Amino acid sequence: MYVLVNDSIISGEEATLKITDLAIQRGYGIFDFLKTVAGKPIFLEDHLDRFYSSAEQMRLPVKQSRQDLTNSLVSLIAKNNLSESGVRITLTGGYSPDGFNISSESNLFVTQTDFVINRDFDKSIGLMTYEYQRQFASAKTLDYLKAIWLQPVLKEKGADDILYHDNGMLRECPRANFFLVNEKDEVLTSKSNILKGVTRKHILKMGSRNFKIDERELTMDDLRHAKEVFITSTTKNILPVTKIDGRLIGDGKPGPVTKVLMKEFDGYIYG
Amino acid sequence: MYVLVNDSIISGEEATLKITDLAIQRGYGIFDFLKTVAGKPIFLEDHLDRFYSSAEQMRLPVKQSRQDLTNSLVSLIAKNNLSESGVRITLTGGYSPDGFNISSESNLFVTQTDFVINRDFDKSIGLMTYEYQRQFASAKTLDYLKAIWLQPVLKEKGADDILYHDNGMLRECPRANFFLVNEKDEVLTSKSNILKGVTRKHILKMGSRNFKIDERELTMDDLRHAKEVFITSTTKNILPVTKIDGRLIGDGKPGPVTKVLMKEFDGYIYG
Repeated sequence: MYVLVNDSIISGEEATLKITDLAIQRGYGIFDFLKTVAGKPIFLEDHLDRFYSSAEQMRLPVKQSRQDLTNSLVSLIAKNNLSESGVRITLTGGYSPDGFNISSESNLFVTQTDFVINRDFDKSIGLMTYEYQRQFASAKTLDYLKAIWLQPVLKEKGADDILYHDNGMLRECPRANFFLVNEKDEVLTSKSNILKGVTRKHILKMGSRNFKIDERELTMDDLRHAKEVFITSTTKNILPVTKIDGRLIGDGKPGPVTKVLMKEFDGYIYG
Repeated sequence: MYVLVNDSIISGEEATLKITDLAIQRGYGIFDFLKTVAGKPIFLEDHLDRFYSSAEQMRLPVKQSRQDLTNSLVSLIAKNNLSESGVRITLTGGYSPDGFNISSESNLFVTQTDFVINRDFDKSIGLMTYEYQRQFASAKTLDYLKAIWLQPVLKEKGADDILYHDNGMLRECPRANFFLVNEKDEVLTSKSNILKGVTRKHILKMGSRNFKIDERELTMDDLRHAKEVFITSTTKNILPVTKIDGRLIGDGKPGPVTKVLMKEFDGYIYG
């Protein structure tokens, strides 16, 4: 697979950074991740919006203009010639002269991976709740320490993903947003101190003729009374959650509201 | 300068990691930093203790045994032939097959930099307080997002370093431990939710004929009543702090207790 490193498209095997890069020295960088369907990037402008926003929030300069970056992405995607794929744009603090301050030239690289999204609507997962608040919540930073550290705990508990909560407030999964269906059949997603996902945004934008869909401050108590739960992300679209901390949600199968939304969102994306 | 990358000593310019390394992908790794004086590592065993402890806490496998790593450090230090230097041992999550789980083979590299420690006892700095609690406080992880992000704020405020506090409790600086001298001339350092520094440990171990030196839970209120303040680290030994958030500590010069300890600790290290 080819990758873009700064201004050059090279073979992925050759793609390296010097060890003085601030990502390697101090974990400092941001990224974004989008998918292609039938060789075309989906929600590209939203991902670029968020990429440049994360960079700005973290004070990282981006040498590439939005137009240049778009052109590079198009070239790379054409060259790799995959139908369905994930595309990751990463920006690091660059080669810091003192190993601590952000370089005036950040490093940018783009990788692409073969990736087919699940469209089996009967699949569901279990979550484990965990008290944690991501730092720099609204920026997509490289900081996944807690999530990676928790992977063996997840396996031990027989769960598939983590639901972060903080001081009783529901937040997000490490790589996905959280939604629940309450007793009034309202579809609600956590409102603050989260990374606002592009899939989440489009579900809110899409709306539904059948249900109210909104963002709201959600609590652990709302979770206990939820009729249905699902998570959303670029790689998952809508993924039903049927178990939380070992307790079944509803009858342990994807719920009717979730299934309607999955169908509607599938049409929204794949036309 | 030569560097060690896994089992090979190579030129620093050539030292790279592939972009699939988990430090680059997810900021995942740990490190330690020690100094050499007259070509000899100082407190090597303490730094190795902490390095292996950080690795274990973060579930990172270390291929190199302690003896092998010691031998590699000795070879590298001999080859670079610097009298005074800083030596950094970094361990990352390795080339993760899925970009999320820790590889069974972590990457280890050791870099060395020319570095002469300040022994001017009249130098002092100013701190800016900031509400923050480091995650995985007792492990020396790569996560310096907050500290790096705050560098322009520090400059704006005319301060030199940051003092983290959390819920009214004093913690640490991003790369140094915190000490204060209270109204009873007791020398106290924050006790919990911090990275326990090797210099801090040796100051507690050294003690003083003249003063009680101890660790204790310290509060913002203790800071307001402090007669003297200093910070400690491998690169700073003892460094007086004479200003906090723009307010002078004592008369704005390094205090008498600090100066005695600096002299005692200088003797302790340099003999």
